Amino acid sequence: MDVPESTDDLRAAPPQQYVQTFQLPGEFKLQRGGVLHDVDCAYETWGELNSSATNAVLVCHAISGDSHAARHDPTDSPGWWDTLIGPGKAIDTDRFFVICPNVLGSCNGTTGPSSRRRVESGGEIAGLSATACGAASSSANSSSAASITGESTTDEPVDEHMLPWGAEFPDITILDMVRLERKLTESLGIKRLRAVVGGSLGGHQALTWATAFPGSTDLCIAIASSPRLTSQALGFDVIARNAIQTDPHFAGGQYYSRPNKPDTGLAIARMLGHITYLSSAAMESKFELDRHDPRHIASQFEQRFSIGSYLAHQGQKFTTRFDANSYITLSTAMDLFDLGGDAQNLQQSFSRCDCEFLIISFSSDWLFTPEQSLDIVEALTMLDKPVTYAEITTPAGHDAFLIERDISQYAPLVAAKLADHTSAATVALQPFKTDSGRESKLTVASEQIEQQLLDLIEPGTSVLDLGCGDGRLLEELSRRGHQRLVGVEVAQDGIHAAARRGLNVIDYDLNQGLPAFADSQFDFVVLSETLQIVANIQSLLMEMLRVGENVIVGFSNFAHRKLREDFVIRGRSPRSQGLYGHAWYNTPNRRFPSIADVSDLCTTCHAEIIGAVYLDTQAAEVIAPDNDPNLNADFAILKVRQL
Amino acid sequence: MDVPESTDDLRAAPPQQYVQTFQLPGEFKLQRGGVLHDVDCAYETWGELNSSATNAVLVCHAISGDSHAARHDPTDSPGWWDTLIGPGKAIDTDRFFVICPNVLGSCNGTTGPSSRRRVESGGEIAGLSATACGAASSSANSSSAASITGESTTDEPVDEHMLPWGAEFPDITILDMVRLERKLTESLGIKRLRAVVGGSLGGHQALTWATAFPGSTDLCIAIASSPRLTSQALGFDVIARNAIQTDPHFAGGQYYSRPNKPDTGLAIARMLGHITYLSSAAMESKFELDRHDPRHIASQFEQRFSIGSYLAHQGQKFTTRFDANSYITLSTAMDLFDLGGDAQNLQQSFSRCDCEFLIISFSSDWLFTPEQSLDIVEALTMLDKPVTYAEITTPAGHDAFLIERDISQYAPLVAAKLADHTSAATVALQPFKTDSGRESKLTVASEQIEQQLLDLIEPGTSVLDLGCGDGRLLEELSRRGHQRLVGVEVAQDGIHAAARRGLNVIDYDLNQGLPAFADSQFDFVVLSETLQIVANIQSLLMEMLRVGENVIVGFSNFAHRKLREDFVIRGRSPRSQGLYGHAWYNTPNRRFPSIADVSDLCTTCHAEIIGAVYLDTQAAEVIAPDNDPNLNADFAILKVRQL
Repeated sequence: MDVPESTDDLRAAPPQQYVQTFQLPGEFKLQRGGVLHDVDCAYETWGELNSSATNAVLVCHAISGDSHAARHDPTDSPGWWDTLIGPGKAIDTDRFFVICPNVLGSCNGTTGPSSRRRVESGGEIAGLSATACGAASSSANSSSAASITGESTTDEPVDEHMLPWGAEFPDITILDMVRLERKLTESLGIKRLRAVVGGSLGGHQALTWATAFPGSTDLCIAIASSPRLTSQALGFDVIARNAIQTDPHFAGGQYYSRPNKPDTGLAIARMLGHITYLSSAAMESKFELDRHDPRHIASQFEQRFSIGSYLAHQGQKFTTRFDANSYITLSTAMDLFDLGGDAQNLQQSFSRCDCEFLIISFSSDWLFTPEQSLDIVEALTMLDKPVTYAEITTPAGHDAFLIERDISQYAPLVAAKLADHTSAATVALQPFKTDSGRESKLTVASEQIEQQLLDLIEPGTSVLDLGCGDGRLLEELSRRGHQRLVGVEVAQDGIHAAARRGLNVIDYDLNQGLPAFADSQFDFVVLSETLQIVANIQSLLMEMLRVGENVIVGFSNFAHRKLREDFVIRGRSPRSQGLYGHAWYNTPNRRFPSIADVSDLCTTCHAEIIGAVYLDTQAAEVIAPDNDPNLNADFAILKVRQL
Repeated sequence: MDVPESTDDLRAAPPQQYVQTFQLPGEFKLQRGGVLHDVDCAYETWGELNSSATNAVLVCHAISGDSHAARHDPTDSPGWWDTLIGPGKAIDTDRFFVICPNVLGSCNGTTGPSSRRRVESGGEIAGLSATACGAASSSANSSSAASITGESTTDEPVDEHMLPWGAEFPDITILDMVRLERKLTESLGIKRLRAVVGGSLGGHQALTWATAFPGSTDLCIAIASSPRLTSQALGFDVIARNAIQTDPHFAGGQYYSRPNKPDTGLAIARMLGHITYLSSAAMESKFELDRHDPRHIASQFEQRFSIGSYLAHQGQKFTTRFDANSYITLSTAMDLFDLGGDAQNLQQSFSRCDCEFLIISFSSDWLFTPEQSLDIVEALTMLDKPVTYAEITTPAGHDAFLIERDISQYAPLVAAKLADHTSAATVALQPFKTDSGRESKLTVASEQIEQQLLDLIEPGTSVLDLGCGDGRLLEELSRRGHQRLVGVEVAQDGIHAAARRGLNVIDYDLNQGLPAFADSQFDFVVLSETLQIVANIQSLLMEMLRVGENVIVGFSNFAHRKLREDFVIRGRSPRSQGLYGHAWYNTPNRRFPSIADVSDLCTTCHAEIIGAVYLDTQAAEVIAPDNDPNLNADFAILKVRQL
């Protein structure tokens, strides 16, 4: 077999002609107590900063990434996020000034464990043995130096007193990475970013920008990220570091001048990483056909199965481009990242944020799970922070954030959030009331319903719309000046459409209740044309009454005269002609309530009906309350509140 | 923190006074071409073999297990399956003669890589280097010998020409293990086992007994098992072996006489194993509270997080009781195990089986997934082989098969399958027709329905009962002499009750169709009082018509007069008083069809109604076909076949 491709196969050292270096003279104090001197930060940029410096987008890379996020021109080597970043793409380099720095602690230009520091004899640096120092000085120009490109791009002779940090490199945190990135963006004249965007470890950086530095960015986009690692993910990282640190060639981390590096341990660590980046289903489709037919490659590692030769190939290749000490440093920083393990701590972490959020997860990502992204979303919604969330359905696992097919699924959301809705909204969006002459009866019915709903919502109030669809109702409320508006939707096209309207919409299953929302958080909670697909309507209604001061429920009345006649005369399961015109045996609907049924349920839930509109949508008429709406209306809108 | 307990914490070397050794003189040829000489097999037994030798149960252990499956007396050290095996337990040692051998290739008494073989100078064994041989002979009594207990329990001086196999131990397979186990059971005078039972690698052995040796056992119980490893699981095994084999102390596998063994690599392999044995949720609850508060233990391994000290502890402890070469040998045997990667190959593997099967999986097991167990079940049902299957709901992951709480969930199924239904059935089971004087109206209705259903099923036919509940209908059919009877049920108490009746019942979600069943596999497919909870009734009906020559559908008629009146007069969602008397907003039912609706659907599905019974269950009357059953019957039973 051929060794299957991996997102890793694209990687090589960034093309040096595009890499710039920001130099930060003096001390750089670290969160956990260490100190670095004269830190370098390698970075690349695309596009141009506008005169007001308001169009800067910072892109943050993942653990084995680097500054080369995208091609700079057609002849350039591929970037790791080419699908997302470029002229006319979601992160449009014709509009935005895009910056991608190499993170602190890495080995692609920014200061890290392979960087050299000045060693003063008998001085502060006691941790280095004389042997290691001697060896390092004597072979500083050995072949292994190529893979530890670091602090200098010149060919000056190496200073006898400069030695790599190695394992003496201090503990760094995601906060330290972000603090260096802030120094970089400040040096470029940027006071506030338009957005900070990243996946995996890059997502951790984006979340740290938002939580630690309010006012630093308009928008935080965290993809395939989490508030902290799961215990399982921690366990994998611990094993990976153990494999590196127990490799005899690790030599306490001072291997740079030795003939052998801890390549075996680093390769094993990378093999483990590769398994966690893929879903089990993705591995199955990649390796099942030729399970017993491995490709033979030159390797000390087992190659009994196709997965074996793949792992051997990926593990070995990684050792040619990455430094073992950097891997330890960066994975430890990820492991130490912790915005909170419960709702209370998470809310505290996000309490000072003032930016908008876009959170993206992937259904088959078991390393940074959708549930973990949802924890972030729930903390934000509880705090009334603007957030849009989508779980992308994919078999690709954690790697999905780097895969073209999946990027094309979430890129429209990135583009929508980066669009300037404040100026474009009134132009770009369709009018809420369209010329109904050309519309189907169905659209006419929907418009009647929406118009009546709007009339029940007092001006200026906050609204949570459950099952918001493409966000038409919320958009109209926004146009009418309502400020705190949140939509909930599970259909991906609905989420995309609502995001394009500049709305905040959350990918969320109503069957689990409303744990993301606080008591009395909204003036109005709306559930329209959605009630019939919910499994337990009683518990959802109680949740709505908890979260909203007022609840508005719009639903088709299955005791409408036509349906009753149909049932009584034809003896068929009730079925409406319009909105709910499915066959009884395959309808997505699972409830067929009448107005009387829902009224009864309100009583059961200790709620009172404080307003009601009854419609005959086919006749486009309002049915008066004394005209037996349960018989004559095909749709009802009830305004309810807790007794 | 304290290092949390693990199922591994119980393990120590088996108490020698209970371990017997079966010696197989001469050559033992292996499946993949190697040859062993004078193989030993360590084993333990419980209970007594009866005079007809028909009460023997073989218990097979997992990768790091041994022969000590259970205590022999109250003062004995704990066994790894004490909850399942013992007097009065599911595997009742008062009734059964239980045998547990240590597997071939292991290191607890049965021949494996740490066993010594005779080395003839210049002879067949060319793989050993002179250095390794010399070192081995000169220190054969070193302290490390204790952990490689092997071929001999005597204290004779070690023969100068006996050296451990080490990495020269040939590839073995699960089939080789089972062939040795068969030699053992034959030597004990057993021609056919009552059952062979095992979890994980033990399940692979049980499946191999059933597939490779028809006639060798009445019953095969495979728990937390699979037809082959997933690519993901293979990948973890490859990494584990790489960690061992690249440990410098591995020394090409000839480390037995050296001062150091490849303990680092073996510990890393075991750490990886531990993560795969637990679910992510189980790890979360085990390590979250004290994530940043690891227990300090003496270790070369990282202990930054509580999971870190746990893994260090478990990894190190394992090296004191297990041999690295055995770990490689056994994990390779698991990886080579392959009953087929698709339905066709799987069916071929199981085609000659003549035993009954009990397959158990665990919902959170991501190493050997429920889907993999279901693949086995589907192959067996396609082949008309008797099988009972249950997926146990648990957060414990793969380890669940060893955990008391989960054992107590599946033990009743093991006990039910081991019970002798041929003699006890007529005594132990309740009569189908009970004295209805004491029964509720509901039971009376159910009995009317069942009686009518039975009358529609021709004598001696094969029947698949979908949503079989506790198996009452199938039990009555069994009493009437029907042979091929299969039940499908998702409720765990239903599965247990049906198994207690001696029936074959499969844990299966009808919403996924009937892929486990072949075209025209059954004379009758029955779906009674279940139709209303299925999401897509059309596709299920088509599947039933594909699998059954005849289909019988029993369902509540929601167009019954009382319901119509209720709907028309009261304007409430139709709701029956009896079987389906739920509130509209929380009923598990999602369909409310009338007799006319189902009749229409049959036409849509190109099926004809060839028989029908209409009931007024409240009045306990049959409604004549010309007496408007759609109005007057509250229950209908239709017999349908494809046109």
